[in-house]
Amino acid sequence: MHDFKAPIRDIQFTLYEVLGAEQHYQRIGAQEANRELVDAIIVEGGKFAEEVLAPLNQIGDTVGCQFDNGVVTTPPGFKEAYKQYVEGGWPSLAGEAAYGGQGLPESLATVVNEMVSTANWSWGMYPGLSHGAKLTLSQYGTEEQKQTYLSKLTSGEWTGTMCLTESHCGTDLGLLKTKAELQADGSYSITGTKIFISAGEHDMAENIVHIVIARIPGSPAGTKGISLFVVPKMNADDGSKNAVSCGSIEHKMGIHGNATAVINFDNAKGFLIGEPDHGLKYMFTFMNFARLGTALQGSAAAELSFQGSLAYAKDRLAMRSLTGPKFPEKSADPIIVHPDVRRMLLQQKAIAEGGRAMIYFCTLQGDILNSNVSAEEKSEAEDIMSVLTPIAKAFLTEVGYEAANNGLQVFGGHGYIAEWGMEQIVRDTRIALLYEGTTGIQALDLLGRKVLSDRGKKLRLVTRVMHRFCRDSKNSEMKEFIKPLRKHYKDWGGLTTKLGLKALKDREEVGAASVDYLMYSGYITLAYFWATMADTAYSALKTGSTEKDFYESKIKTARFYFERILPRVKTHKLVMMSGAGNLMDMGDDQFGFYQ
Amino acid sequence: MHDFKAPIRDIQFTLYEVLGAEQHYQRIGAQEANRELVDAIIVEGGKFAEEVLAPLNQIGDTVGCQFDNGVVTTPPGFKEAYKQYVEGGWPSLAGEAAYGGQGLPESLATVVNEMVSTANWSWGMYPGLSHGAKLTLSQYGTEEQKQTYLSKLTSGEWTGTMCLTESHCGTDLGLLKTKAELQADGSYSITGTKIFISAGEHDMAENIVHIVIARIPGSPAGTKGISLFVVPKMNADDGSKNAVSCGSIEHKMGIHGNATAVINFDNAKGFLIGEPDHGLKYMFTFMNFARLGTALQGSAAAELSFQGSLAYAKDRLAMRSLTGPKFPEKSADPIIVHPDVRRMLLQQKAIAEGGRAMIYFCTLQGDILNSNVSAEEKSEAEDIMSVLTPIAKAFLTEVGYEAANNGLQVFGGHGYIAEWGMEQIVRDTRIALLYEGTTGIQALDLLGRKVLSDRGKKLRLVTRVMHRFCRDSKNSEMKEFIKPLRKHYKDWGGLTTKLGLKALKDREEVGAASVDYLMYSGYITLAYFWATMADTAYSALKTGSTEKDFYESKIKTARFYFERILPRVKTHKLVMMSGAGNLMDMGDDQFGFYQ
Repeated sequence: MHDFKAPIRDIQFTLYEVLGAEQHYQRIGAQEANRELVDAIIVEGGKFAEEVLAPLNQIGDTVGCQFDNGVVTTPPGFKEAYKQYVEGGWPSLAGEAAYGGQGLPESLATVVNEMVSTANWSWGMYPGLSHGAKLTLSQYGTEEQKQTYLSKLTSGEWTGTMCLTESHCGTDLGLLKTKAELQADGSYSITGTKIFISAGEHDMAENIVHIVIARIPGSPAGTKGISLFVVPKMNADDGSKNAVSCGSIEHKMGIHGNATAVINFDNAKGFLIGEPDHGLKYMFTFMNFARLGTALQGSAAAELSFQGSLAYAKDRLAMRSLTGPKFPEKSADPIIVHPDVRRMLLQQKAIAEGGRAMIYFCTLQGDILNSNVSAEEKSEAEDIMSVLTPIAKAFLTEVGYEAANNGLQVFGGHGYIAEWGMEQIVRDTRIALLYEGTTGIQALDLLGRKVLSDRGKKLRLVTRVMHRFCRDSKNSEMKEFIKPLRKHYKDWGGLTTKLGLKALKDREEVGAASVDYLMYSGYITLAYFWATMADTAYSALKTGSTEKDFYESKIKTARFYFERILPRVKTHKLVMMSGAGNLMDMGDDQFGFYQ
Repeated sequence: MHDFKAPIRDIQFTLYEVLGAEQHYQRIGAQEANRELVDAIIVEGGKFAEEVLAPLNQIGDTVGCQFDNGVVTTPPGFKEAYKQYVEGGWPSLAGEAAYGGQGLPESLATVVNEMVSTANWSWGMYPGLSHGAKLTLSQYGTEEQKQTYLSKLTSGEWTGTMCLTESHCGTDLGLLKTKAELQADGSYSITGTKIFISAGEHDMAENIVHIVIARIPGSPAGTKGISLFVVPKMNADDGSKNAVSCGSIEHKMGIHGNATAVINFDNAKGFLIGEPDHGLKYMFTFMNFARLGTALQGSAAAELSFQGSLAYAKDRLAMRSLTGPKFPEKSADPIIVHPDVRRMLLQQKAIAEGGRAMIYFCTLQGDILNSNVSAEEKSEAEDIMSVLTPIAKAFLTEVGYEAANNGLQVFGGHGYIAEWGMEQIVRDTRIALLYEGTTGIQALDLLGRKVLSDRGKKLRLVTRVMHRFCRDSKNSEMKEFIKPLRKHYKDWGGLTTKLGLKALKDREEVGAASVDYLMYSGYITLAYFWATMADTAYSALKTGSTEKDFYESKIKTARFYFERILPRVKTHKLVMMSGAGNLMDMGDDQFGFYQ
């Protein structure tokens, strides 16, 4: 298995050179996040990921979490690594100062989370889920709830979860059955069974804070009657056991190191967060964070897979270059000489680095929401983020999964063998297309809720960002990127209008076009980020940078992306405009004919 | 886990109605393969697959093969199922009568193999590998070798393998190190270690006949010095143990029920097959069979995945149709009402049924090769097959893997959980893109060896088949399919010429275009088969068939394919014409920048 290396140089390039993080932190009033501090965080976070977490990635898969009579044991080393993580103060990085946090911008937590999660996705989900719980409590919790739970989550002494899914409902949460009955003391008695609870039970912390959705008797049916509760595994007042238990953990395709738990609440003591029946809205705080976190799984998979397959492609000898031996002194050429191997490497690189830029961009928008800039600026950042979040989540996980498959493919038959670690990346990443809303759900969110509902207003904020970049770029060499980018973002708008008109006649057109629309949007969005990176690289080369290879690599990868990946929009466009009939005309009984 | 059902009706449709198998068997002189017999074989084979093999598929995955000190134990039930298979006479179906075979056409063995392999891929590989060994011995073995080994393989008492790969070479067999030294008695002493030997060791039969490639000292270096040997696990003359041992079995992503063995030959006694140094040519008999067998894994995965996800989509309730409740009496609509779920179901159906037609077509060409028709007819069949085999292998496994992923995706989060069986299909199928030559290798074979080497002559035989179909179709409704098909197969030829010219200037253009060219070719080829199926369906409807739903389903699936899958050729065309520069200009040291 290849040793993971934190991509420090690329993180710095993306954060500082492409996205102007130094000015950004000034703008949002985070003066403490100066270059020196941020660099130190990146380097130390990278070291932790490389030295502590990466070595546990494979054993996390092979040993997995063990369940015995309600008790979950995490894989060897996971618990100790978590202790080091807490001692290093990592959980508190972006936490509210009033509850023990360091008050740094969320975007910095994302950068650290990226390295942690690339090194060991299963492990990273434990603090990842906690972070979501923190955000929810920070935004909607009472002062008492914050003192009690948020401070412990911030220190990392306790971890958190999100308890949404039940066996009969995941996407359609309006069907949930878990009930919450008001008690004389103002608390609620929670009863029901939740499934698919990531990090739901483990041995890494002394308490687990479950954020649970449930229905209060008498509340409206469907999603309008959902309330949000905080339900600790151990009662916070006296440390006694709450009526919360782990019924089992799932046997899954991957992420074996993370416990996916069935959690039973049997008249467990819980506390309402915010107002009754507003739970779904609150939960979306958590969900939006989780969606961006899941988007990260796509680019993280591409990064890890790329590192492994790049090393292998330079090492493994097979056949000769079609233009004659490149390494005549060896028994065969290393496979990196073969064009198709390069194609697979470059696809991974394009997604790893392009995805990084897309996610960092989104998380910087998130910083703006939490800052003191004008309401107008905030509203714009929120709108841009609301369009980009489903794109980042679904698109990056789809192409990240493709990247993981390409990484495996570079290894030939060896890629299928567990010891190389490549097939684990494929298995681990597969879940990213499912949880926090499947690709199909993200696509409906994007096209139905985000884009068509305001007749493309929010979308135009996104394409305006692209327009301004194209207008302002100073490098004449950028034509090869700017010309197609301009064409595509204009098409994006035009196509959206056409789909809107089709949808007025037949609502099924939205669902029938949605996934192709999302992928189409994703390819154009990533083209924008690759164009900005090429532009940054050209500028750096002109100022006489000594890192000629690094910047040339960016330009060449951008070219690869524009010439070999971006053309996929052609197909998506044709397909999404092909009409709903070719999907809807088939009778339910016409699909299969089995005796 | 969903119960597998043999797709009897669809097999009959494809074989008889689309491909005219009755006339075909007459033409090749296989009079005994009349409709009654063939139907009986299909029904009985289907029953065996459903009742004996399908129930062992999941346990094959969870228990897997166990290795202990050289001994491999197959999963519970595998051995007993094999015994039943032998008792049923299945191994001898297409075998030579002189060695105990029933002498039926190879294509019928493929039909049975399809059902067997769909029900339980890992199990099916044991007889599958035997079948390849049989074909090799049948074609190149001496009379004595046939009497000794072929008869035992035909009865199924013994099984066979193909021992090619060594740890340092898979694709590049010229690098192999296993040596074969001539002994005084005319036998050879074989020494070396082979890896990735499917069905290489097990407890299902009393002997295993290894077909081994090795180098005789003094033979030329590279692929021109490879010879082929038969090396039994137990010596055939006295039943004593040969110096063949299993060193270990691999831990793999999937196909856990099939032992992927390391086989050590320590001065093992082997016998030369055919002439020295001609091994690679002989081996390709085996390989071509294996490639078509692997192509089957793509459509088999699509079929199994489709059956599971179709049942789930009709059962699982979530959300309401965008056009209002379709099942108002239920708490939500079954997810089959949602356009995007239908898109995923139809992609699977299109690959399962279209892939079946493509593979059956190829195997019928194979029948012709083995028959007494004219040399000209044989040569044409061989040429067509040589173009279609790499397409079927690589294209169908790529889109079959996509289908398996779509099946998993229909299940949402449940698809990631082992008990549903959907993630197993994804893991099992992933290997199909690797073994018997990766997608990249098939693509080079297609574009470099099969198409460009004779300036498209063999390719024109394939497009001529399409041309004749378009010319001869009698159904006026077929315009929607014939018009685009005609355009595409003409484009295919034109594009090939253009690539040929590019390749004259720069050989890297072949490698750079190859995989996109292969996928492009695959989509057009499958379009042809869907068009023929739609044409057959229109004709049947006009003759007043009572199976209206069945035939309408074919036409609607063809429409789905033409409108939503075939447009992918647009992107592949753009990408393959984008030039090799965007892959080759990147310096080897410009790919990654890690400290």
